[in-house]
Amino acid sequence: MKLTHTAAGTFAISPTPFHDDGRIDDKSIDRLTDFYTEVGCDGVTVLGILGEAPKLEASEAEAVATRFVKRAKNLQVIVGVSAPGFAAMRTLARKSMDAGAAGVMIAPPPSLRTDDQITTYFKQAEEAIGDDIPWVLQDYPLTLSVIFTPAVIRKIVMDSKSCVMLKHEDWPGLEKISTLRGFQKDGSLRPLSILTGNGGMFLDFEMERGADGAMTGYAFPELLIDVVNLSKKGDRDGAHNLFDAHLPLMRYEQQPGVGLTVRKYVLQKRGIISSSTQRKPGAAITAAARAEVDYLLSRVARVDKRANLQPQSSAAG
Amino acid sequence: MKLTHTAAGTFAISPTPFHDDGRIDDKSIDRLTDFYTEVGCDGVTVLGILGEAPKLEASEAEAVATRFVKRAKNLQVIVGVSAPGFAAMRTLARKSMDAGAAGVMIAPPPSLRTDDQITTYFKQAEEAIGDDIPWVLQDYPLTLSVIFTPAVIRKIVMDSKSCVMLKHEDWPGLEKISTLRGFQKDGSLRPLSILTGNGGMFLDFEMERGADGAMTGYAFPELLIDVVNLSKKGDRDGAHNLFDAHLPLMRYEQQPGVGLTVRKYVLQKRGIISSSTQRKPGAAITAAARAEVDYLLSRVARVDKRANLQPQSSAAG
Amino acid sequence: MKLTHTAAGTFAISPTPFHDDGRIDDKSIDRLTDFYTEVGCDGVTVLGILGEAPKLEASEAEAVATRFVKRAKNLQVIVGVSAPGFAAMRTLARKSMDAGAAGVMIAPPPSLRTDDQITTYFKQAEEAIGDDIPWVLQDYPLTLSVIFTPAVIRKIVMDSKSCVMLKHEDWPGLEKISTLRGFQKDGSLRPLSILTGNGGMFLDFEMERGADGAMTGYAFPELLIDVVNLSKKGDRDGAHNLFDAHLPLMRYEQQPGVGLTVRKYVLQKRGIISSSTQRKPGAAITAAARAEVDYLLSRVARVDKRANLQPQSSAAG
Amino acid sequence: MKLTHTAAGTFAISPTPFHDDGRIDDKSIDRLTDFYTEVGCDGVTVLGILGEAPKLEASEAEAVATRFVKRAKNLQVIVGVSAPGFAAMRTLARKSMDAGAAGVMIAPPPSLRTDDQITTYFKQAEEAIGDDIPWVLQDYPLTLSVIFTPAVIRKIVMDSKSCVMLKHEDWPGLEKISTLRGFQKDGSLRPLSILTGNGGMFLDFEMERGADGAMTGYAFPELLIDVVNLSKKGDRDGAHNLFDAHLPLMRYEQQPGVGLTVRKYVLQKRGIISSSTQRKPGAAITAAARAEVDYLLSRVARVDKRANLQPQSSAAG
Repeated sequence: MKLTHTAAGTFAISPTPFHDDGRIDDKSIDRLTDFYTEVGCDGVTVLGILGEAPKLEASEAEAVATRFVKRAKNLQVIVGVSAPGFAAMRTLARKSMDAGAAGVMIAPPPSLRTDDQITTYFKQAEEAIGDDIPWVLQDYPLTLSVIFTPAVIRKIVMDSKSCVMLKHEDWPGLEKISTLRGFQKDGSLRPLSILTGNGGMFLDFEMERGADGAMTGYAFPELLIDVVNLSKKGDRDGAHNLFDAHLPLMRYEQQPGVGLTVRKYVLQKRGIISSSTQRKPGAAITAAARAEVDYLLSRVARVDKRANLQPQSSAAG
Repeated sequence: MKLTHTAAGTFAISPTPFHDDGRIDDKSIDRLTDFYTEVGCDGVTVLGILGEAPKLEASEAEAVATRFVKRAKNLQVIVGVSAPGFAAMRTLARKSMDAGAAGVMIAPPPSLRTDDQITTYFKQAEEAIGDDIPWVLQDYPLTLSVIFTPAVIRKIVMDSKSCVMLKHEDWPGLEKISTLRGFQKDGSLRPLSILTGNGGMFLDFEMERGADGAMTGYAFPELLIDVVNLSKKGDRDGAHNLFDAHLPLMRYEQQPGVGLTVRKYVLQKRGIISSSTQRKPGAAITAAARAEVDYLLSRVARVDKRANLQPQSSAAG
Repeated sequence: MKLTHTAAGTFAISPTPFHDDGRIDDKSIDRLTDFYTEVGCDGVTVLGILGEAPKLEASEAEAVATRFVKRAKNLQVIVGVSAPGFAAMRTLARKSMDAGAAGVMIAPPPSLRTDDQITTYFKQAEEAIGDDIPWVLQDYPLTLSVIFTPAVIRKIVMDSKSCVMLKHEDWPGLEKISTLRGFQKDGSLRPLSILTGNGGMFLDFEMERGADGAMTGYAFPELLIDVVNLSKKGDRDGAHNLFDAHLPLMRYEQQPGVGLTVRKYVLQKRGIISSSTQRKPGAAITAAARAEVDYLLSRVARVDKRANLQPQSSAAG
Repeated sequence: MKLTHTAAGTFAISPTPFHDDGRIDDKSIDRLTDFYTEVGCDGVTVLGILGEAPKLEASEAEAVATRFVKRAKNLQVIVGVSAPGFAAMRTLARKSMDAGAAGVMIAPPPSLRTDDQITTYFKQAEEAIGDDIPWVLQDYPLTLSVIFTPAVIRKIVMDSKSCVMLKHEDWPGLEKISTLRGFQKDGSLRPLSILTGNGGMFLDFEMERGADGAMTGYAFPELLIDVVNLSKKGDRDGAHNLFDAHLPLMRYEQQPGVGLTVRKYVLQKRGIISSSTQRKPGAAITAAARAEVDYLLSRVARVDKRANLQPQSSAAG
């Protein structure tokens, strides 16, 4: 089922699992897919920045995307197709869709600066992949160093009918959500799904500002799902109470570079991926960091039992 | 009393208070100084990035620094003297020290890239201000876009006897503290005070990694003081419990640009500064953000009564 | 006489002359002013990037601007007032105009990215200095890392009646001149003086595309004047012949950082400034570079006798 | 024959020729290879920045590299293998060498900042491709925004025995050549080939500072060859005379972005490539620019007959 502007809920950003020697770990892909499905995610986004996409060869990327798509049953798969050139972007996009992906996600190259450069780039990207593929606009200035104003986002969306979702990851970004929803109210912007990233660090208020859900890689997608649902039900205090219990760990994960290290460690500890290896360049988790994460997990577990990880898995670290 | 490498505890980063029309508000400077003293800060840092220093004329900067210094009794005052050129840096540094400041703080200009450029710059800065002035090295890549490796910090410190403190504000930065403390253990780095910034977001673990205290602008310096003290006493759970109660608000403050807006709003609400005005370019707090901060304050207040702000001051917002 | 949109011809960018010990050299300021007047410049721009403006204290900048203005008789003086904050910008602008400057020049701070940030900045700058001061918009992405599209320049100009000139220094920039002149033809942009920089490296074609003249620091402003005049007379081959004779030296000067070193060396060799000293941070010319410049001068002198510098001045190097 | 540190002379940087519809133009690849051989180039570098490498899919890049290699007889082919990840870099490097390439060229990713990040990256790159492949270090800060000090270059070279050449493209860069050659004299750096880029803009002095030759994409490689040879023979004036005649055109080509447009236009005009098409994103040459290039060609042709292009080819523009 193709992605539409009605998409909502929680889309987990999945890491790409490797064996200790750096080969892609297919069985862990399957377990990740099953895990995201079982906990109740609405979708999963693969080959994003968290997914170490640039470290894969083109053929590997196609294989990873296809494996996720084939395994996923009640889960929409979005494939990150950002690439240095449109030829590679097109090929991965079309192969992913042919395999059954719901849509693709496109980030801007860091060289873009002016409003015109940005809108032109996404117009050309849409032409490259074809306007029959639903796509997600990734707005992530901290890492990508490209700044979209709300008006630029509106222009991109209005110029491309197949752009159905904003991955919102500006920081600060709360006013941006309010402004975009305001554009929709005044009729200048058509309906658009907004899912938020930033490791979940502002999910509590992002939902209150009008986001449709979360798209991020926090190692407990259950928490994202619950906060999204509590918020949609209008249980403000409930949402914040649960959110606040996880915030210390979430904050720890939201360290540039370190984040992936921590997430792979936790997912390994949860028994979902078999190795926390990253391809080079990439850091290993230090003993001190591992102990800090374990302490944070134990503190989260006082409120949320799901963080009470099994002792046998601690050996895997 | 001049700053030395034994400095520790909590140094608040102070905003510069303005009247609604943008003039400097001397009475609020006095109240800020008294407030920081009363709650138990060890020092205060003025004319930093939070202090809107580049928006002041040279004569205004000298007046602000002098007013803080004259008012402070049991509080060491550090004056930010970062400037586009060494002539202006020298003048402000020497006038501040003549007025009674404890030391000065220097940030790198954003144009520095290579290790050599960085170490040469700070060597020249020390020559410019004179080697009799104790100075603080500001390591803040997120905003300044200059990256110091631990080895570069070591070289700067070993090249300049008057460099007595690191304002640690890298993100991620925990391993950097461990590495620097390791350098001291292996004898390659002399004693150095390390106070941490980043809005306090990692203060819990920074203390455990070996920091001497906090230097940041969180609007409740009381919390920073308590966490530093609990941590030094070895009460790990106590430190984390208190820290976690404030983390949702701290996280909200730690939004680039928005942070100063929120801090001025809270300090005004606390009755310490009379206006939350910033000089241009600078944003005003939106109604939505104000309501979110108020909600967060009310949630902190459930655990920490000090966040239970008096109703009369809410009128000031 | 205040600067207007009819300004044309050659405005030299002047370095700031220092004594060997770094103090400002007033007599060399006088000689520079006289020299620019005698060779036939229409104006001189002081305290620009070439003028090491950020290395001066506020009081020094005012003194330098005033000295140039007081000495200049038949020469319009434009004062660079770019500053980290609007307060300092306003003070220097107003004092310069009070002393008799023709106008001021404003460059964007490197942090600006989006079209909105850029146009808002210049609107606030105009408000800060007052709309009675004619000002020059500096478009210099190579050094300032801010990119103006032609449409953004148009908006800035149309938003501020006191913006009378563009210092054009984009690279590549020929199409930008054509586009802006096209805007004027279609009525969407009001009359605007365009003087070009880039060390003169494209002056030949910039004139043909519609520039009004040159504003740059090449150490032989005589050449700029001649090329501008030949081009205006329609003597295309004559303009290129003379231009080409100087291009090897011009190209040598147009090395980032090195350029100022070379220009001060040549101006000293010409007997105009008494020292080639720069304030720190700043490089000295190497022996190898000096010899290369001397060789280039001897080659230019085969075509243009004015490059045949007196032997006594070579001792000054 | 594999590339060694004794490589010298002129290595042309080749564009990648496309048909008007964007498909790779194999016959033009053959003509380019023959042309570079016939005029006397020592080598050709393909899939560099000029070669629009990021716009090709992995399979296309392999095909282009292989076609150049197979066609080249007395010409060493260097293949640009810079890639966002090491997996893709390795595959292209090994396939190119298997096909008969002389070596590969590697540029740093723009995210590198500190000396350690840079040296670590190239150590990992060498491990990725295997230490049996001779490689060229590309130092091009203007476009890549990574700054190598001479000491960093030395460390990279001393850490990797298979690094045999520096593509020198810093600006300014003359002192860097002198410093590196000084390192070799003092014994701290082993022998290293240095070929220079920057569109040839400083080739005259680069040779005098100790470069071994040129590696750049100027559309008249004959000029590069002649200047390199005259300089090696010690005919300084002869080298400069010829160089100066081409400098106005060379300068025109050395406009970021525009350069490729001009070079493809001239190569098409010379009858070597059949279309001047670039893949998106990429600009077409304007009518004004075409006329300017034609005028410059006619001026060069007064001194160098080789620039007197045949009338029939002008129709191709």
